[in-house]
Amino acid sequence: VVLLRRVIGDTLRAQRLAQHRTLREVSTAARVSLGYLSEVERGQKEASSELLSSICDALGVHLSEMLRDVSDTLAIAETAPVGVLEPVGDLERAVEPRARLAAHDVVAAA
Amino acid sequence: VVLLRRVIGDTLRAQRLAQHRTLREVSTAARVSLGYLSEVERGQKEASSELLSSICDALGVHLSEMLRDVSDTLAIAETAPVGVLEPVGDLERAVEPRARLAAHDVVAAA
Repeated sequence: VVLLRRVIGDTLRAQRLAQHRTLREVSTAARVSLGYLSEVERGQKEASSELLSSICDALGVHLSEMLRDVSDTLAIAETAPVGVLEPVGDLERAVEPRARLAAHDVVAAA
Repeated sequence: VVLLRRVIGDTLRAQRLAQHRTLREVSTAARVSLGYLSEVERGQKEASSELLSSICDALGVHLSEMLRDVSDTLAIAETAPVGVLEPVGDLERAVEPRARLAAHDVVAAA
């Protein structure tokens, strides 16, 4: 079973990385702790409705848009055989170092 | 601000009423307490990812479909002036007695 909070976390994280922003930047803008945002992105914590709104605001995306992405991802997972989403996670981990580097550049430039 | 849990609650409730099913039926099928499901439907409680999956399963809808409805509703709310969604709530309350009657018929027939 694909957990909603996992897909929401992946979606928020992908959006943040696409903007080359750090956890620190987005958590500050959303007024949530860095640790909390990190846990939400990793699907380890359920984000409250208020928090999801804040994070989406901080990312400059409508909550409806984010949820549409989540719905699309879930729809694929619902029709896919079990385990097919694992490579996506691996891919994300594979690109993480580059994203971290970009994030570091942003912090250094601030 | 339109709260996600409120829209999710409205969406779940609309789906349940469209199927002429009672809170009791769906809560039993989803293995959640009737009170909890009622609070989720009224947007008073955040449903966990696991719970949302169970409720959607009990309703026979994919989580992705439910979230697509939620996204569509949010998209309207995001572009609408504040307060425009209130009549929807009034409308729901207005049709509630009929829905209750239908639900009662289902129970009586079971």
